[in-house]
Amino acid sequence: MTNSISVLERDSSDSPCYNEEMKTISSILSIQKVVTAIRDKKRRIGLVPTMGAFHEGHLSLMRKARRECDIVVVSLFVNPLQFGPTEDFKRYPCDLMADRKMAQAAGVDFLFAPTAEAIVPPDLETSVSVDKVASRWEGTIRPGHFRGVATIVAKLFQIVNPHVAYFGQKDYQQTVVIRKMVRDLHFNLKLRILPTVREKDGLAKSSRNKFLLKKERSVASILYRALQQAKQSVQEGEHDCQRLAQQVALIFSAEPSVQVDYIAFCHPTTLGLVSRVLRKTVLLLAVRIGSVRLLDNIILHRQRAL
Amino acid sequence: MTNSISVLERDSSDSPCYNEEMKTISSILSIQKVVTAIRDKKRRIGLVPTMGAFHEGHLSLMRKARRECDIVVVSLFVNPLQFGPTEDFKRYPCDLMADRKMAQAAGVDFLFAPTAEAIVPPDLETSVSVDKVASRWEGTIRPGHFRGVATIVAKLFQIVNPHVAYFGQKDYQQTVVIRKMVRDLHFNLKLRILPTVREKDGLAKSSRNKFLLKKERSVASILYRALQQAKQSVQEGEHDCQRLAQQVALIFSAEPSVQVDYIAFCHPTTLGLVSRVLRKTVLLLAVRIGSVRLLDNIILHRQRAL
Repeated sequence: MTNSISVLERDSSDSPCYNEEMKTISSILSIQKVVTAIRDKKRRIGLVPTMGAFHEGHLSLMRKARRECDIVVVSLFVNPLQFGPTEDFKRYPCDLMADRKMAQAAGVDFLFAPTAEAIVPPDLETSVSVDKVASRWEGTIRPGHFRGVATIVAKLFQIVNPHVAYFGQKDYQQTVVIRKMVRDLHFNLKLRILPTVREKDGLAKSSRNKFLLKKERSVASILYRALQQAKQSVQEGEHDCQRLAQQVALIFSAEPSVQVDYIAFCHPTTLGLVSRVLRKTVLLLAVRIGSVRLLDNIILHRQRAL
Repeated sequence: MTNSISVLERDSSDSPCYNEEMKTISSILSIQKVVTAIRDKKRRIGLVPTMGAFHEGHLSLMRKARRECDIVVVSLFVNPLQFGPTEDFKRYPCDLMADRKMAQAAGVDFLFAPTAEAIVPPDLETSVSVDKVASRWEGTIRPGHFRGVATIVAKLFQIVNPHVAYFGQKDYQQTVVIRKMVRDLHFNLKLRILPTVREKDGLAKSSRNKFLLKKERSVASILYRALQQAKQSVQEGEHDCQRLAQQVALIFSAEPSVQVDYIAFCHPTTLGLVSRVLRKTVLLLAVRIGSVRLLDNIILHRQRAL
């Protein structure tokens, strides 16, 4: 009898909160069984959806999930649907061994790393679209990008069925699109958006930073400086978005290697342009340096009159 | 102590399997609480999604759900998204009092009847599309129809979170579209498709039959006769779909008040046209009689050579 209990305790579905051995799972059916067993035990599941190539940004999400949930699942799937035909899907960085080590060190219980064929089989016909908030900014420049994101995130939410899902603020529009989808389709989960993690010079951590040539890398902190300039101007009482945008544009104009895609002061949930800084306004930046597109953003708060 | 237990037992969430008083719920939050409590008790939930105006077809789904599940939820929502701008949304029949009586008599536990504003609020931006199988037949004639269906069914599945969902075979293409969506988006539920219920003369029960004028109604059984003709021909060894389609067309040509939208012999899951009757082939019919569109179908089985 004692023996059978000890066998049960070693059962893989009966994993302790802090798993010494992180499990890597590729099959959809297997992860579904795992999460069903976890749910049956009333444990809270945290999901961190990723495309791998982990950096401190990803790790901060995993650690937060570790603190807030009983079981942490990280999905690792480079989503082909969110890349356009001329984009960098094929060169998107990928190092599963390194990612596994980092995820395990961050306390992750399950790394769900399905194949492309499992998630995007040739007969996949269903897609999830978000209309207005996905059509602006990145949606204009990367048609179909957010439909790809929403479809795969919806699939991951359905498969892993988490109580909480974690995303980084760095891809601000993505978080807005996903929040809209979660509300519109009644996903029974909580979204947690965590602050952007930065390099010492302020450049937002991104898997694509490694494609910057040395010269380009030294220029890339210009996004952070532009965001800080806007923040400071708002703190000093400048609330006119056209003037703020001119200040930001001026910063970029000093660097001929930087091509600006957009400088947009937006409503934080509709992403529509605003003419004056509201109680909460988001500044979205997208630029190209060499072959690399860089995004960054900051949330600005209108200063109260003294 | 005894008292507190009896209070608990009278708790509304602790409803018996066969509810003597069916509850009508309009709030999304309330039905979500109800189904969460039911799921926590490991009871199986059956969902029958409807647009109301119940007839024997709906009731057969409810009774089946009653036999197979612990708790039966019927949703009643006339989905504006699945009607085109020139279609009959405004005249779609509606009689909540009669529907409640019928559902209660069929043993339904919860009638979920949300408002249009709750399910399709003005800021709804997310939609679910199914590509190929939704683009044929009804998809061609009613652009956007199946996107409306898939979006609302996805929402209902997310809200009610059933173990089993019940649909009638009468809207055959709808069942194919929903099955594709369920697979592609990993909905954790079982679909049950039940046979079409018919009037004495063979006309498939439909909420729209009441719009047929007396003369039109007497003609309407022609769809059933056409289906039976095809079935008989196949039984007699005719497997060529072009010749079968000609036979069906000949039947309709005898009735000038009938306008044929399509006569389609299709693969049962892709809905692509087939040239010969396969082991399983579906014949889809769509016609207009007066102001009413009528759909019907039959599954044909290739006869084995003796």
